[in-house]
Amino acid sequence: MTAARTRWEGRLLVVGTGLIGTSLGLAARAAGADVLLADVDSRRVDLAVSLGAGRPAEDAVGSAAAADLMIIAAPPAAIGPIAEDAIQRDLAQTVSHVGSVQTQPQVYLETHGCPVSRFVGSHPIAGRELSGPAHADAGLFQDRPWVVCPTDATAEDATEMVLGLARACGAQPVLLDAGAHDRLFARLSHVPQLVASALAASLAELAPEGVALAGAGVRDTTRLADSEPEMWAEIAIANAGPVAAGIRAVAEPLLAVAAALEAHGDGHAAVRRLLEGGRTGRALLPGKHGGAPTVLAEVQVVVPDQPGALADLLAAVASERINLEDLRVDHSPEQQIGIAELVVSSAARDALVSALRGAGWTVTSGASTAL
Amino acid sequence: MTAARTRWEGRLLVVGTGLIGTSLGLAARAAGADVLLADVDSRRVDLAVSLGAGRPAEDAVGSAAAADLMIIAAPPAAIGPIAEDAIQRDLAQTVSHVGSVQTQPQVYLETHGCPVSRFVGSHPIAGRELSGPAHADAGLFQDRPWVVCPTDATAEDATEMVLGLARACGAQPVLLDAGAHDRLFARLSHVPQLVASALAASLAELAPEGVALAGAGVRDTTRLADSEPEMWAEIAIANAGPVAAGIRAVAEPLLAVAAALEAHGDGHAAVRRLLEGGRTGRALLPGKHGGAPTVLAEVQVVVPDQPGALADLLAAVASERINLEDLRVDHSPEQQIGIAELVVSSAARDALVSALRGAGWTVTSGASTAL
Repeated sequence: MTAARTRWEGRLLVVGTGLIGTSLGLAARAAGADVLLADVDSRRVDLAVSLGAGRPAEDAVGSAAAADLMIIAAPPAAIGPIAEDAIQRDLAQTVSHVGSVQTQPQVYLETHGCPVSRFVGSHPIAGRELSGPAHADAGLFQDRPWVVCPTDATAEDATEMVLGLARACGAQPVLLDAGAHDRLFARLSHVPQLVASALAASLAELAPEGVALAGAGVRDTTRLADSEPEMWAEIAIANAGPVAAGIRAVAEPLLAVAAALEAHGDGHAAVRRLLEGGRTGRALLPGKHGGAPTVLAEVQVVVPDQPGALADLLAAVASERINLEDLRVDHSPEQQIGIAELVVSSAARDALVSALRGAGWTVTSGASTAL
Repeated sequence: MTAARTRWEGRLLVVGTGLIGTSLGLAARAAGADVLLADVDSRRVDLAVSLGAGRPAEDAVGSAAAADLMIIAAPPAAIGPIAEDAIQRDLAQTVSHVGSVQTQPQVYLETHGCPVSRFVGSHPIAGRELSGPAHADAGLFQDRPWVVCPTDATAEDATEMVLGLARACGAQPVLLDAGAHDRLFARLSHVPQLVASALAASLAELAPEGVALAGAGVRDTTRLADSEPEMWAEIAIANAGPVAAGIRAVAEPLLAVAAALEAHGDGHAAVRRLLEGGRTGRALLPGKHGGAPTVLAEVQVVVPDQPGALADLLAAVASERINLEDLRVDHSPEQQIGIAELVVSSAARDALVSALRGAGWTVTSGASTAL
């Protein structure tokens, strides 16, 4: 069930019309807002306007308190200065942003002596490996968490203003202290990004025909390494302390294992400890729908590489009234064939395997696993 | 197209009836082989026999050259001693194994003065996060690479014997030097496993309600951390040198970035260099079917969490005659809803988005990306 969206009929000023800013304009307009759009690149404003995300801000800003709420959707380092200027010029009753780092802009304003009672940072957990207004969509925030980070100095109605916009965009607001947010997302997002990049970078010295033998494991583990370097470099710098600590929490145990392996001594115990720690940490990650980990089963099926084959397979699954918990498609090198991994509840596994085999599908394996 | 399997009508002795050994028995029997099964745990032999993977080896072994080919499908450290015993007792004309590490058993035999002309290691790249004979399947090796590692001392017909079995199982044999294999799979498999475990282990100190906000990025990056600790500890020990070097190639650049972030100096350049190196390495990973990376587009669609919804979506995709290159399903915490990420060629993106929207689906975003 998709959460019903509330109305939000104030005037919203969005500064920065990239993927997030433009999607925000679209979502807010759908909720009833009057949306003004600004960007240092006027072509991006034109594109966002043509997509229906709002109208250009030029005419409206300049007058005092032109907007009820201003959202800064700009790179991390730009948020503090833009917010300071907006507060000094009284451009909006409440000023917020949607950056991946919360402490830096808050501290910037406080150290510049800027009044912060009507400033409140936020962070919708939406969008990835995507950029630019052309990919914007009103549904980007639907059913996603949206972290809001008021301080003791924040006026209550400023916080409520941001919470209201988040709900109007279909998101699930979560209140968090800015420092807690930054420490948490260093571990959940910024460090995984850097670890994936470091692992992928280490492959660059291998022979290409060797790397062609890589399986799904290393591909999944390095998927984040496709992300845009400049944005992530700025995020890491803006959250330097927690990111550095998070890197050490991953890299130092790895180097201890390397040293143990090189010493030909207690290597087995050290490696095993690391692997068992990994299972413990992994068990904390949300299963489907954020609930406790459930025992699921994985069933692998050979799928011919032609339009409709995967749909036929899933139709066969659906005809058994079995709900797919997850699905992944893997491919063999050099062969026009794929392996679909169907994840279902363990209870449904046997029925699924026999139904698929009965319908002529090649089921290559199936295993129970805690996801 | 699934590769046609060749016949293989000799006598095969499989030692170790776990997932790989039992699957091998099933595949070889389907190709016409007489398969003998042995395991230190007689219950696993009974299960493998009941699954149709072969007959118990007790009666047949003991006589000289009882088998044409013996495959050891046992934990890494056990392979050398089992092979030595088999060669001394002349149990098979050719002795091979299917371990993840190639140098260790080869060196074990050579340092024990064992004749190695009829010993040749191999490594089918198949199966993961799965274990036990109950999950075995004759199709496990279908269209997967199968690395075979002869040395200068290996008799040509011994190598041919293993290549023939690999082809009979539907696999694609690849010849590699044992040392090259171990250095390559340290990077492609053993180190990604340890890195995923270290990253997942670092989450264990976070508050569970915080980890519940984790998105798909960290989940993908840590997926391998679900693997079985004892098996992977043995693999790391058996391939200690290349694994330690591979760990250093990942962890040392990460620590250099942490130091740069802590120094408040040249952090941006250091982080950006790491992220750009990651894109370079990632581009070497095989795209679909092992070919060069192609420009693909990702389209995200909201899918209600009910049986058949995903099948309906894929039927809508198929009715446009658009081929899915990849597919992933992501879920929002706490909400009974999923996001399906459809990966198609960039050329097909716009047609797909408009067709899906026309059919009433909520398309939340779509982006071009190099996969």
